[in-house]
Amino acid sequence: MRKYFFVFTLFIGLLIFLIKGTFAGDPGGTRTYSDSILGLKFSVNFAWTLLCAFLVFNMQAGFTFLGAGFLQKKNTLNYLAMSFADFCIGSIVFWLFGFALMFGGSKLAPGLSWGNQFIGYSGFLLIGDSYDVSASVLWIFQMMFAASACTIVTGAVAERIKFHIHIIYSAFLCGVIYPLFGHWMWGKGWLELLPFGAGARDFAGSGIVHGMGGLIAFVAAWMIGPRFGKYNPDGSPNVIQGHNMVYIVIGTLILIFGWFGFNAGSALAITELRIAVVSVNTFLSAVAGAITLLYFSYFKTTKSDVIMTCNGALAGCVAITASGAYVPHWAAIIIGVIASLITRTSLYFIESKLKIDDPVGAISVHGANGIWGLLSVGIFSDGTYGGVRGLITGSGWQLLAQFIACVTLITWCLVVGFLFFFALKRSFGLRVPVNIERSGIDIYEHGASCYPGL
Amino acid sequence: MRKYFFVFTLFIGLLIFLIKGTFAGDPGGTRTYSDSILGLKFSVNFAWTLLCAFLVFNMQAGFTFLGAGFLQKKNTLNYLAMSFADFCIGSIVFWLFGFALMFGGSKLAPGLSWGNQFIGYSGFLLIGDSYDVSASVLWIFQMMFAASACTIVTGAVAERIKFHIHIIYSAFLCGVIYPLFGHWMWGKGWLELLPFGAGARDFAGSGIVHGMGGLIAFVAAWMIGPRFGKYNPDGSPNVIQGHNMVYIVIGTLILIFGWFGFNAGSALAITELRIAVVSVNTFLSAVAGAITLLYFSYFKTTKSDVIMTCNGALAGCVAITASGAYVPHWAAIIIGVIASLITRTSLYFIESKLKIDDPVGAISVHGANGIWGLLSVGIFSDGTYGGVRGLITGSGWQLLAQFIACVTLITWCLVVGFLFFFALKRSFGLRVPVNIERSGIDIYEHGASCYPGL
Amino acid sequence: MRKYFFVFTLFIGLLIFLIKGTFAGDPGGTRTYSDSILGLKFSVNFAWTLLCAFLVFNMQAGFTFLGAGFLQKKNTLNYLAMSFADFCIGSIVFWLFGFALMFGGSKLAPGLSWGNQFIGYSGFLLIGDSYDVSASVLWIFQMMFAASACTIVTGAVAERIKFHIHIIYSAFLCGVIYPLFGHWMWGKGWLELLPFGAGARDFAGSGIVHGMGGLIAFVAAWMIGPRFGKYNPDGSPNVIQGHNMVYIVIGTLILIFGWFGFNAGSALAITELRIAVVSVNTFLSAVAGAITLLYFSYFKTTKSDVIMTCNGALAGCVAITASGAYVPHWAAIIIGVIASLITRTSLYFIESKLKIDDPVGAISVHGANGIWGLLSVGIFSDGTYGGVRGLITGSGWQLLAQFIACVTLITWCLVVGFLFFFALKRSFGLRVPVNIERSGIDIYEHGASCYPGL
Repeated sequence: MRKYFFVFTLFIGLLIFLIKGTFAGDPGGTRTYSDSILGLKFSVNFAWTLLCAFLVFNMQAGFTFLGAGFLQKKNTLNYLAMSFADFCIGSIVFWLFGFALMFGGSKLAPGLSWGNQFIGYSGFLLIGDSYDVSASVLWIFQMMFAASACTIVTGAVAERIKFHIHIIYSAFLCGVIYPLFGHWMWGKGWLELLPFGAGARDFAGSGIVHGMGGLIAFVAAWMIGPRFGKYNPDGSPNVIQGHNMVYIVIGTLILIFGWFGFNAGSALAITELRIAVVSVNTFLSAVAGAITLLYFSYFKTTKSDVIMTCNGALAGCVAITASGAYVPHWAAIIIGVIASLITRTSLYFIESKLKIDDPVGAISVHGANGIWGLLSVGIFSDGTYGGVRGLITGSGWQLLAQFIACVTLITWCLVVGFLFFFALKRSFGLRVPVNIERSGIDIYEHGASCYPGL
Repeated sequence: MRKYFFVFTLFIGLLIFLIKGTFAGDPGGTRTYSDSILGLKFSVNFAWTLLCAFLVFNMQAGFTFLGAGFLQKKNTLNYLAMSFADFCIGSIVFWLFGFALMFGGSKLAPGLSWGNQFIGYSGFLLIGDSYDVSASVLWIFQMMFAASACTIVTGAVAERIKFHIHIIYSAFLCGVIYPLFGHWMWGKGWLELLPFGAGARDFAGSGIVHGMGGLIAFVAAWMIGPRFGKYNPDGSPNVIQGHNMVYIVIGTLILIFGWFGFNAGSALAITELRIAVVSVNTFLSAVAGAITLLYFSYFKTTKSDVIMTCNGALAGCVAITASGAYVPHWAAIIIGVIASLITRTSLYFIESKLKIDDPVGAISVHGANGIWGLLSVGIFSDGTYGGVRGLITGSGWQLLAQFIACVTLITWCLVVGFLFFFALKRSFGLRVPVNIERSGIDIYEHGASCYPGL
Repeated sequence: MRKYFFVFTLFIGLLIFLIKGTFAGDPGGTRTYSDSILGLKFSVNFAWTLLCAFLVFNMQAGFTFLGAGFLQKKNTLNYLAMSFADFCIGSIVFWLFGFALMFGGSKLAPGLSWGNQFIGYSGFLLIGDSYDVSASVLWIFQMMFAASACTIVTGAVAERIKFHIHIIYSAFLCGVIYPLFGHWMWGKGWLELLPFGAGARDFAGSGIVHGMGGLIAFVAAWMIGPRFGKYNPDGSPNVIQGHNMVYIVIGTLILIFGWFGFNAGSALAITELRIAVVSVNTFLSAVAGAITLLYFSYFKTTKSDVIMTCNGALAGCVAITASGAYVPHWAAIIIGVIASLITRTSLYFIESKLKIDDPVGAISVHGANGIWGLLSVGIFSDGTYGGVRGLITGSGWQLLAQFIACVTLITWCLVVGFLFFFALKRSFGLRVPVNIERSGIDIYEHGASCYPGL
């Protein structure tokens, strides 16, 4: 009785706090907007950023199609559930404190004043000063990015992870790992302010979103172990086929569609006309990657491998995400070609040498190219935007900054990721029982199969 | 012979009338636009409204996926046909007179001058003064909303309704029921002008679109009766499983994607920066609803129910549609949580107590939360936008206005819906023959099956 | 050894050329943008054009769904691969020289200064003066159009063409046939400058994109011959059913969604408010076409044919693509109705009289209506936009210009298409071996089946 009374009082107290604390920023937008050049500038930049955020959200449909196609029918519903639940959980956590840790002190919007180079601490719950239209628009755009990082991991651990373990690490990723590193790169943190070149730069998150997603996927897939039947006793890998190639191709197309918003939206402003170059670079890098692996597979096997073609396109997209704003068009093509070759090599290396089982190739597509993307900024930037000058302009300082960012990213993800998954493994265990894994997770976790009518 | 001559003359007369009558508004846009702050304001608001209209159109793909997934394979093609045909028929009717009934007298665009608080009567066929760029942009945005209301009904009567009955009520809904109530709320009608609070407010159509769709679905599903085999002789319901959960999850994701346009577009202006808050609220309400039903089902059954999770997300979207512009972020979460619980309760109540068979849950997701959404405006509005103040600011007047709107909506839908479907039932009959229902409607109505290759 | 040295030197030389040549236009956008009315105008028009380009890209998902649904399961992966690879190859070619041939001399952006009425020759590789934000935004929008033209052909030759033949003609189409005709209509070429009416006009590419796609499809499908089993020895056609109607309907919906960007984006400017009328016309024409064929099939067979309904909608979209900007709303409906009837007639004529096998109906939907769209500009334009006056204003000059454009288009496509496919047929051969065709192309070309789990 007393317990309920206590909870009730706490709830009422919180409610009063929330109600009283909501009038500080400019939540109506009437002070931010005015009938003037400046007001219109706010207005169009809001429109651009919001629409790009919506496009990035739509990438969830792409990830869902892609993953569903790559997996076995008996585990597809489980994947759908995970890829849906992770952004739900993640966004609550990001609203509560992830956003504050990441952008506190960045001064990118009202209410984000407090924070240092290592951590932010303002903007919690978007209340107080951050109950403001500018903070809201930044929040929703950044939220979609955190959700993407989360979903990348999902595919690598699919077909064997416990559903609620996935929920837990989604919350941890969106609440702690992602925002902290994100703060260093995008929230006026120490990496962004490095005194080499223009400071470490990751325009739309090759490293922050995709690199992190892929590296965490690496740790997770390694610690959880391969699927039953993936490796023979002699260590040679078997192919475990997916169940629907239409989903894979459609998923890739939807992802590229969303990627335009991902990359071009990251200027957070349409008044930065450079986004036109960013859009073209994104597309060119994607198609260059796709063609490279299409003909690579063709010349090796005389078959034109569709999955490899899709992987190549996505690899190109990932790599150009960091550098799309800084490099010329021809460099985008080179970046895409190299990205696709890295992916091909990494897929082989991860599967056959490291013997880590990654059902959808997330580690090789997102992880490896996240790092390549970061480095490519230091190589191909031509100095026409943001003062970022790479090797081709004759300066190596930017590459140094990018290299430091890479080392930091890898260390951060591997160390924190390892500690986190190690703790989870020892406490709750990561995997479903092996008999469940063999018969399919869908019925066990969700009480239904994905295609009930069949 | 004389008959054809008469028809031909009429046609030529109409054509001459149309040709002569098309130059009155500003169809070229050159008088509306100018190289000035005001001209650019028109310009960006057009862009925003159009793009959001396109996003709302894309919700049709979401509805199609969702419904297809929920239904049995033998009736899926029929559902596809209905959900495609309804917006086709609906938009012709809305063009002919629905739009004029709804927005005549609203003065929201040139050519919409005539109308009173109860009915509009200008803007027919978008000719004359309403052959104008501003009227066109309003038309297409509103058209997509009418189409959504229509499609909501489709799922509730699926697997047993006659195809052409569906066409008839689609025309009636888009031409009469929807525009009239819509006029009262959005076309400077009596509900909008109620002298309580700011007048009844339904920002993006929780009540007008979703409430109406759900309530008409209620009447229709009740009058048409349950599917064969849904209820046992003792009245207990059976589960009739759908056939593809991928479609359900993807459909939900596409609907949320479109909902951003639905809600944030409803300001009809990007210069209303509040749309940033609207977008965030839409997302938070959706994820809060999803998580609530995810864990509700988990704690009840130890299974994480994917359909319930999707229903929760959609319930959150529906409820926040009315209030998204007026409430703070934390309230959006509460609204979403309550919405999902209402949906869960309503699903049980409709199926097991009222014994009404609603294959896709349209009544509980859209109908019940349409009403909850309307009421939530009167509770959680914090006065930061549009002068709408709910209970949390200490005033009950807005809630009174919202309550009147709810009562009107329910009465209007149930009474007119009943009379209409009663007339149809007595004249043409609503259902396909029972042997057709058992063997599947696809072949009977459309001469093909949905998966011919299988 | 010497050979590699030569290639290496060439590569380094090219690289130096690229690096040195990239600073001439305004690649950063800072000179194009300024905090002024003019700067904002650039800004919002960029946003509009980019977002519409993204929507047009998303049509690739629509084409993929549509084609996959229409085809047999055993050839679906091959279709997916072709429809993915063609825009990849096409865009590299369009970047290398297609864009330069098409828009050189149009002066639509910096760096496009050189060219005559017959061919353009500036803008290669988007380097030099055309490394500019305005050129980039034009490039990406136009690129998506070229990709659409390419993909239209794919469906007509599916289930029997060799994969790499498809790649070759994709490159040829995007690099030569399409850009040259496109230059004449859109790049200040001789058709655009015809001294009749306002010159030949094709607002968003009924003729250039869809007409060309359909006409090339006609030549290709004719030269490659029908699928095995399509025609009986007596010449009567058999129906070869597709495998998934959900894909067909969803594909159609996604295509309409993208078509809004296709048509409304073609103003390349949101400051042209006429795009509101364009959007409404696009939608009305689509629904009018859909309803016409829905009831046409119903009255002929008492079945409501879903495929025909989708074809009708797409036919309406194709036809209004040329005229959407110039005609009033009521005319859009007439254009859509006629378009759908043309498609129905053409489908019958092509299949039963000409005995050309077009599995997805691309010739009838895109080809026939591309021509009808061009002509409709000359009939229904009411003079409210762009000074284009059709028959209904009492002037026949515009129709003459449109007629000349049609004749040119048909001649160009048939002659060049024939020569090209004739050469391919004689050299490499167009078709896969007949035993492969019977067992399915997927395994043969791609080493996998589309639904491996089944």
